[in-house]
Amino acid sequence: MPGRRLSPPNSLLSNLRPHSPPPLALCSSQALCVVTTGAGVNHIDLEECRRRGVLVANVGGTFSKDVADYAVGLLIDALRRITMSDRYLRNGLWVTRGAYPLGSKVGGKRVGIVGLGSIGSAIAKRLEAFGCKISYLSRKPKPTAHYRYISNIIDLATESEILVVSCSLTKETHHIINKQVLQALGKEGIIVNIGRGAHIDEPELVRSLVQGEIKGVGLDVYENEPNVPKAMFEMENVVLTPHHAVLTPEALSDALQICITNFEAFFAGKPLLTQVVSD
Amino acid sequence: MPGRRLSPPNSLLSNLRPHSPPPLALCSSQALCVVTTGAGVNHIDLEECRRRGVLVANVGGTFSKDVADYAVGLLIDALRRITMSDRYLRNGLWVTRGAYPLGSKVGGKRVGIVGLGSIGSAIAKRLEAFGCKISYLSRKPKPTAHYRYISNIIDLATESEILVVSCSLTKETHHIINKQVLQALGKEGIIVNIGRGAHIDEPELVRSLVQGEIKGVGLDVYENEPNVPKAMFEMENVVLTPHHAVLTPEALSDALQICITNFEAFFAGKPLLTQVVSD
Repeated sequence: MPGRRLSPPNSLLSNLRPHSPPPLALCSSQALCVVTTGAGVNHIDLEECRRRGVLVANVGGTFSKDVADYAVGLLIDALRRITMSDRYLRNGLWVTRGAYPLGSKVGGKRVGIVGLGSIGSAIAKRLEAFGCKISYLSRKPKPTAHYRYISNIIDLATESEILVVSCSLTKETHHIINKQVLQALGKEGIIVNIGRGAHIDEPELVRSLVQGEIKGVGLDVYENEPNVPKAMFEMENVVLTPHHAVLTPEALSDALQICITNFEAFFAGKPLLTQVVSD
Repeated sequence: MPGRRLSPPNSLLSNLRPHSPPPLALCSSQALCVVTTGAGVNHIDLEECRRRGVLVANVGGTFSKDVADYAVGLLIDALRRITMSDRYLRNGLWVTRGAYPLGSKVGGKRVGIVGLGSIGSAIAKRLEAFGCKISYLSRKPKPTAHYRYISNIIDLATESEILVVSCSLTKETHHIINKQVLQALGKEGIIVNIGRGAHIDEPELVRSLVQGEIKGVGLDVYENEPNVPKAMFEMENVVLTPHHAVLTPEALSDALQICITNFEAFFAGKPLLTQVVSD
């Protein structure tokens, strides 16, 4: 409203799009609380927030189960070739060429989960019901997890037939899936990524798919969204979805309520419901 | 081999394609054993076999887990719109039109399983890990099942948000999903069929999809395979795969071994490993 003077904000709502600008850049020095509508906080400078005494809240585990469901959906899809064979059928090829090539069994697969937080744990729980054998990587072993802990990504890839990326994006996990990891995973390997695009060195991934160095992928996130490497559009062994693992109407409604509750707590001087603490 | 006299067969291997001819029609009166390479026996006249003293074997539960995995994959796919959004992305629409419409949450959904045999039970076990609420229909309650038993299909459809068809095809289950069931399921309802095409009145299903009377489907089987109603090819809310829920290389290898074991048992005069008994 032209001419109206706005008070400097002391709280800020940040949306969940990964390419949204870092909110602190937009934020006056008086902002004391940042509430993001997502689970990831890689778009927020937590260290700077801590230095300035700015509280940060995300929506906690609201989206974790939906993301885990989606990860399992991508995994089954990539292994059993659901999306690919739907395309085959719609193109009329079942009639003219006959049966679509077989996919691969889910049960018994060795699955390596990169990051056993709330999402990774929910993925593991679901995959156990399919008879998969779960290993995981995290900064340190989780005392409550009964899965096999592997302390480095190369060993995890070597021991796994499928890697599922479900960690948060940090300096340490940027390009955690690189050329060496892809090679360690090998020709029969499948990668599912429902974390962030920058977890994977995307040009290396595309190269390894083109060369047949891994078997396939199920991706919901990309390094430069909404742009996806064009070379993958023509590939049969990839499932590509537009960053919506996190999104269901039901979870969005829950997330909105958590954001409101966090703001109410902040303005009432009470502890935030789902505060993020940098470590 | 021309001129060579063949002994009348006393056993017969039937393949698993649903449109294969009824094997007894090809079979001499001396055939005393029919071994089918699939789980379904709807292509075999069990009553006639019983009358003639012909033993029948299938491959038992070899394929059950793979089919269950696939059913869950179709269910997640139809709810969370994986295949549809892959198509959206590959058509370049993420860049030009933005986000793809949200799918619906898996957790908490009321799922009605039509037929709680080895496949239905495996589906139920998997869906429990996603937090779905399971009910089932079968001829009588299963003493070992802790799910809610519902004794007729209309009530099951009324109480469910998703129906998964996993029963065997018999006179009683032919077109078990008909107009009344579709209406009882309602506008938010999803159907997954990994049973047989003839479980569903297909023209009624297509009509209900066109009219928006149900929300969507995930289908692996059809009434007149490999022909699929053309009207569905243009639909966004359907996942269509070419009857391969049952097929993985690993399970085929297991099935082959079971067939061999059944033949060996038959010729050795021992009990068949996986004999089918008509009831």
